[in-house]
Amino acid sequence: MKKVASGISPLIAIDRALRKPLHRQIYDAYRGAIVGHSLRAGDRVPSTRLLASDLGISRIPILNAYAQLQAEGYFETRVGAGTIVSASLPDQMVAVRPSRTGAAFPNHRGVRRLSKQSEALPLGESPLRRGPGAFSVNQIAVDQFPFQIWNSLVVRHCRRASMNSLNYGNPMGLSELCGAIATYLRTARGVRCEPEQIMIVSGSQQGLEIATRVLLDRGDSVWMEEPGYSLARSVFAFHGCQILPVPVDGEGLNVAAGIKIGRSARAALVTPSHQHPLGVTMSASRRLQLLQWAESSGSWILEDDYDSEYRYESMPIASLQGLDANARVIYIGTFSKVLFPSLRLGYLVIPQDLVARFRAARVAIDLNPPVFSQSVLADFIHEGHFSRHLRRMRILYGERSRAMVRAIRDELGPAAEITGGDAGMNLSITLKGIDDQAIADEAARQNLWLVPLSSSYLRRPGRQGFILGFGNVPVEQIQGAVRKLISTINRAGA
Amino acid sequence: MKKVASGISPLIAIDRALRKPLHRQIYDAYRGAIVGHSLRAGDRVPSTRLLASDLGISRIPILNAYAQLQAEGYFETRVGAGTIVSASLPDQMVAVRPSRTGAAFPNHRGVRRLSKQSEALPLGESPLRRGPGAFSVNQIAVDQFPFQIWNSLVVRHCRRASMNSLNYGNPMGLSELCGAIATYLRTARGVRCEPEQIMIVSGSQQGLEIATRVLLDRGDSVWMEEPGYSLARSVFAFHGCQILPVPVDGEGLNVAAGIKIGRSARAALVTPSHQHPLGVTMSASRRLQLLQWAESSGSWILEDDYDSEYRYESMPIASLQGLDANARVIYIGTFSKVLFPSLRLGYLVIPQDLVARFRAARVAIDLNPPVFSQSVLADFIHEGHFSRHLRRMRILYGERSRAMVRAIRDELGPAAEITGGDAGMNLSITLKGIDDQAIADEAARQNLWLVPLSSSYLRRPGRQGFILGFGNVPVEQIQGAVRKLISTINRAGA
Repeated sequence: MKKVASGISPLIAIDRALRKPLHRQIYDAYRGAIVGHSLRAGDRVPSTRLLASDLGISRIPILNAYAQLQAEGYFETRVGAGTIVSASLPDQMVAVRPSRTGAAFPNHRGVRRLSKQSEALPLGESPLRRGPGAFSVNQIAVDQFPFQIWNSLVVRHCRRASMNSLNYGNPMGLSELCGAIATYLRTARGVRCEPEQIMIVSGSQQGLEIATRVLLDRGDSVWMEEPGYSLARSVFAFHGCQILPVPVDGEGLNVAAGIKIGRSARAALVTPSHQHPLGVTMSASRRLQLLQWAESSGSWILEDDYDSEYRYESMPIASLQGLDANARVIYIGTFSKVLFPSLRLGYLVIPQDLVARFRAARVAIDLNPPVFSQSVLADFIHEGHFSRHLRRMRILYGERSRAMVRAIRDELGPAAEITGGDAGMNLSITLKGIDDQAIADEAARQNLWLVPLSSSYLRRPGRQGFILGFGNVPVEQIQGAVRKLISTINRAGA
Repeated sequence: MKKVASGISPLIAIDRALRKPLHRQIYDAYRGAIVGHSLRAGDRVPSTRLLASDLGISRIPILNAYAQLQAEGYFETRVGAGTIVSASLPDQMVAVRPSRTGAAFPNHRGVRRLSKQSEALPLGESPLRRGPGAFSVNQIAVDQFPFQIWNSLVVRHCRRASMNSLNYGNPMGLSELCGAIATYLRTARGVRCEPEQIMIVSGSQQGLEIATRVLLDRGDSVWMEEPGYSLARSVFAFHGCQILPVPVDGEGLNVAAGIKIGRSARAALVTPSHQHPLGVTMSASRRLQLLQWAESSGSWILEDDYDSEYRYESMPIASLQGLDANARVIYIGTFSKVLFPSLRLGYLVIPQDLVARFRAARVAIDLNPPVFSQSVLADFIHEGHFSRHLRRMRILYGERSRAMVRAIRDELGPAAEITGGDAGMNLSITLKGIDDQAIADEAARQNLWLVPLSSSYLRRPGRQGFILGFGNVPVEQIQGAVRKLISTINRAGA
């Protein structure tokens, strides 16, 4: 049964007390809306029958008004699409169009004051949104995702819609999914947790945001790895926290240096499994020092374990959270790397005594996560597709990583220091005597998406070089992409 | 082709330098994980072949270890499910289970300080999450949603997965959806907007949260309707704003009273189309006064238009935003009422000159909304299903509302003042001489979900009565539910 699509009813103020006849009131309302650009070319208008029912009047005046609007060229009818606003409008009525982006804003009256903390936010494009092309960071191999399986689960859950699946959900997340994640984290990541400690969030970014709001006050200081993850800086800055950059060396964050810089910091954000961007694994002794500091200073540790599932030269490293006897670690994980980013699902593991407060914060911020994608993901994990996909991708990304390291060594020799290629989906190269930002800008014009290493430093200048993603570059294209990169570097350096 | 599901590999540290043989190392790792409750009854373990590949060792020691674990009852194999941890574990090894929710928390060492603002959050259950039963607020008629159509769009989009649909998306939202919403809002709500002013959020709650973070600083004061929407209070409280309750009368928020209470407030949150919870429509003169105040004091207006699509006695009322010549209104809308709450999609309409700042805030908070549900919804609107669903629901909820008003009048007579039944999915009744909280607690034990009206007041005591949802109560059940409600009130009053 094919139904003609129905249009949206415009706001038409019908007034029987007016001397203007009803058909004229309707005609004027539509013509005004079209001339004033509320209704635009191609917009559907409701059928006369539906509009009569919406307005609570007879169809006759509406038929008259529509006939006139059609005769004058404002409306046209299309078979199967009903009545729409014409693409070609009569009598140059379309001249006064409101200004769009790029044009100067109208001169609004009055002061337009925004929050001070929002001034701290960078206004540029996120490094995570780039066009197709080599080296974008945190990009997955989209063609390798098991769509057939995923889609069959989607279809299955479509059939199961119920009151529970449509209604407001649990602020912590769907219990089936929390259970599946807890099992996975205990087994594969050495995390100590029960399902009720898991909160489903939209990704690491929201996880960090919620933890920050619950744990830190404005003005509190927080340790960040230097260099570190630039998008995490936005969370702290937007909350008005003071970021203390703590240097990273071959063993990860230098805890002793952190204590010198700010012993009483309220929290530390770390990436112990695979430091972003340098790729170092935090040593056991540093992990213990960090836990010791947190306990003695009453501070919190935010462990961002964003891509620890992919480790190519050895088994994955157990989480810092699993070593912590004092429940000072908030563990943050995401499905953006192991499944796909547009899914917007990640999770927090929250110490038992803080669960109620985190839950309340979640309700205040956005009530609860979407339910449908959680159900699909819960089944994807329960039925073993998740672990199978992880295994396949670990092999695939391992090959891509090795090919990338080989190509860089072949082309650049010892001039480039390569770090972080043994895990995750990105590696970093450090180069001396270049301007990494200028080169990245030039490379973007050739569809090569480099994140300048210097942008990961709070205190400039740091190392010069690039964070290079290899997740979406097939092995056979890597050599070519690396050559293109090097010729860009050479040209910019010349 | 049926594959046996694959289990997650546990963290096993294989050390060839140890004198302990490999099969013993594997046996000990699994036994330790089971005894320590990292692995639990029913958890799947990987096949010997997969584990050999993950650990980079031969299959022989793994086969030996698995055989022993199975012989001792730790593992069992199930046809089609592979090897799992046994449900019945041997030798009472399962005794020392970590304490779960409800038990006392372990005595962690060190100070456990949380943010001051998180202390302002209510720790109880949200009023939006209730069991099945009459009168839950903001509950839709789940059985009336056009699943067949929605699901066919879901299936269509499953087939269309591409790099764009999997990757990080636009922080503002999918452009097709923003365009569809802009057209709808211009036509049906009288909102002045271009697609680039629309930001997709997870619902009104997140919309209000983002606007608050961008527009207000800690300590700033903000007008809220008194009585007003209690979940909105959490947003302001969590951000450290001072809430100024401004009385609502028959014309909506009393602007003159607001100016007396706090002329220099930085913002006002209003529900002009259908005041929550009293259901008043803000009069034209109040709207102009409010806009005038905002301009002269340099303040912002947050217009929450949460259920304005459903209006039963007249056409919907045009938005306040459409009257505003100075771009001082941030318009907040949601699909939770017109589609379903678990979808978690809503939108902001942002003044052009503030778009860049809102966008930056959105990136900091959670990067971007999930992409899949946005594509489905964009088609649902474009193809006319949305407007058809709106029309059907307007008729259905109109009938339910009238039946509810009739039943209350029949049963309670003039003792109850009924407000707000001419729009939305909730109405309020005011009753004298009752304890609404006590009655609501008692009613919940009988699956009647009442929100006490007094909870909508910041300054207690306000009116006594209830906010009653009629969205999910079929007409034929309304009389019975109202009778049950009244006998509960009478019993509690006795």
